[in-house]
Amino acid sequence: MKAWWVPSVAAVMVFALPVHRVAHAQVAAPVAGQPASSNVRGAEYPRVHADGRVTFRVAAPTAQKVQIQPGGSDNGLGTGPLDMVRDATGNWTVTTAPTVPGFHYYWLLIDGVAANDPSSETYFGWGRPTSGIEIPEPGVDFYAIKDVPHGAVRAQWYQSKATGNWRRAYVYTPPDYDTQTKKRYPVLYLFHGMGEDERGWSSQGKANFILDNLIAEGKAKPMIVVMDTAYASPPMPGTTAQSGARDPRSQFGAFDDMLLKDLVPYIESAFRTHKERNHRAIAGLSRGASLTLQVALGHPEAFAYIGAMSTPQFGAFDPATAHNGAFRDAAAFNARVKLLWLGAGTMEPRFREGTHAMHTALEKSGVKSVFFESVGTSHEWQTWRRSLSDFAARLFRD
Amino acid sequence: MKAWWVPSVAAVMVFALPVHRVAHAQVAAPVAGQPASSNVRGAEYPRVHADGRVTFRVAAPTAQKVQIQPGGSDNGLGTGPLDMVRDATGNWTVTTAPTVPGFHYYWLLIDGVAANDPSSETYFGWGRPTSGIEIPEPGVDFYAIKDVPHGAVRAQWYQSKATGNWRRAYVYTPPDYDTQTKKRYPVLYLFHGMGEDERGWSSQGKANFILDNLIAEGKAKPMIVVMDTAYASPPMPGTTAQSGARDPRSQFGAFDDMLLKDLVPYIESAFRTHKERNHRAIAGLSRGASLTLQVALGHPEAFAYIGAMSTPQFGAFDPATAHNGAFRDAAAFNARVKLLWLGAGTMEPRFREGTHAMHTALEKSGVKSVFFESVGTSHEWQTWRRSLSDFAARLFRD
Repeated sequence: MKAWWVPSVAAVMVFALPVHRVAHAQVAAPVAGQPASSNVRGAEYPRVHADGRVTFRVAAPTAQKVQIQPGGSDNGLGTGPLDMVRDATGNWTVTTAPTVPGFHYYWLLIDGVAANDPSSETYFGWGRPTSGIEIPEPGVDFYAIKDVPHGAVRAQWYQSKATGNWRRAYVYTPPDYDTQTKKRYPVLYLFHGMGEDERGWSSQGKANFILDNLIAEGKAKPMIVVMDTAYASPPMPGTTAQSGARDPRSQFGAFDDMLLKDLVPYIESAFRTHKERNHRAIAGLSRGASLTLQVALGHPEAFAYIGAMSTPQFGAFDPATAHNGAFRDAAAFNARVKLLWLGAGTMEPRFREGTHAMHTALEKSGVKSVFFESVGTSHEWQTWRRSLSDFAARLFRD
Repeated sequence: MKAWWVPSVAAVMVFALPVHRVAHAQVAAPVAGQPASSNVRGAEYPRVHADGRVTFRVAAPTAQKVQIQPGGSDNGLGTGPLDMVRDATGNWTVTTAPTVPGFHYYWLLIDGVAANDPSSETYFGWGRPTSGIEIPEPGVDFYAIKDVPHGAVRAQWYQSKATGNWRRAYVYTPPDYDTQTKKRYPVLYLFHGMGEDERGWSSQGKANFILDNLIAEGKAKPMIVVMDTAYASPPMPGTTAQSGARDPRSQFGAFDDMLLKDLVPYIESAFRTHKERNHRAIAGLSRGASLTLQVALGHPEAFAYIGAMSTPQFGAFDPATAHNGAFRDAAAFNARVKLLWLGAGTMEPRFREGTHAMHTALEKSGVKSVFFESVGTSHEWQTWRRSLSDFAARLFRD
């Protein structure tokens, strides 16, 4: 017991106060930039400079080689590993080129092995908790926490028959939800991308602050936003849903049933919602956009507003045949769907071009859609924060 | 763009479906035990065996040495690093001795550098996101998710004048909170230990499931549980609270003011609470227990129920002088405080002995207190889950 308690406090102090360790080891080195807002409490690195460069620093006295591996591209961090340089005390440092504003996943390679940066909070992406760095966008605060009324993000547990297990959904309730106890609200179902989960939209995406700010400015209707994980494996063949054994080979096989038969009914029983399609929206990013189009176009009775952010729509797009003919009757589609929103970033050209071609082909065939472009951003959360801000402001207007 | 999209999907698939990789690499090896419930989606390792042994496995083909470092002691994982053994494909494996049920922090040492296990969810402890493993306790389900009505855990943002920044509190609302819209609830303020934060009690501690189960069985009154971070640095000397610059040298210096002047008033304005001390309880574990005693004994007007779990009460304890004489008038204390709860695990002898000595001295001086012992558990979350279950059932009974 003694052997543990004493070292544990020491270890915690080291983690909690890295500034003092670094300052002690490197008294002469002036420290430029600011600690990233994505850092853990008290961590002085990574530091973000005014021009968007980032200085990473990691204490790894026993490692032979330490690198930074960016978890994306076209964001200024580059694509390959960035070699860090060791100093005499075993701290490894690298300063990057100027980066693009937004949120960038990254991790360390310690002698070639992927590991998170102990100075960074973790964000669930790439199928696991992953380090991330927040680069402020000068003059832009639509996703910042401000002195406006704040909604809550609630973790809610519900049972899904489609997947045979308990699931956790994150649910944003707008600032007036707890005081306007007779009021009913429209609902946006909002899905993450590949490798992420129900935490992504609030943690990486700052969806709650985006909505708080839009609502405070009168730019969006107060709404509930349901952020569940899109991963929905059906029960294992030969088992029942109740057994809880799920088929990991089919990561999204129960998505439609999970959403339409379990999640929507749960939300509409647990929250004060309008219970019909004209007050239901759905959107998703990347893989979540594919799933959004699949379920919303395959079940036209469910959602009146549809948002597809950075859809992996890479092949030929024919409005007559796409999505089992859902667009074939343009007049009927336009009458039924109040908004079909398509968007992408200019720095993710395959997504941007595929999405724009889809939009153009739809317009040509008479199907109305909105095309949104996020200038200068890639297949990353800054694109989707801007997308959500634009999309949410268009919802539930009539 | 192409260079990124293709490898990224491949990488995500690798993370999301490790079972297939492992099965492919190790067809001959029978896989015993069950994936830990603390693993990320789809991760087959670590695996927990029926007798409590754990098999860890990590893919690290380029590392020279990989070890498991337990983040605690007296839990069966040992105290020093456990060496893992490399196979021909670069997977490193170790199976531990039988462990104690509960939640154990751990991390990897990759060539001596601390790193999280990519197969584990992260849990904020040791001042950073940290791997953890859940070992089931046979026949015990008081903290399991069950088919009972569930409350929610809400992330709530509020401004603290004492610390000069925005803070996030986690707030458990009981299952009937949203339907009993006229009902007011008592509140338990519940604090984590050193190196942890507002997420600890729901994530590691499963406080919400403990309360759901107690309430469903009629063993606890429906209550709100507020779980904020105890870390509360005051503004930097020479600055104002409004500037947001905080003094990292004083990690808990603004705790009392943060709690009494900012958090309690915020909770009592944002939730339907009873707004007086007989409906307010406070508890904490380890460092959180010290803070609990500090604020509750220093401000007797604030809380009627006090719980100190695994208090670091190691020195001599004199009821006449301890806590500025708060216990000196036993009759007045007993009339004012409805419950003073003290507890510890039998496998954390210094905490258990110090706490028991405090209890004994208090009894001798006429001050009533309850002493709770968690058999077979150490300075870890299983002790605190049991402590919460015992403590919460005693609250708000009159």
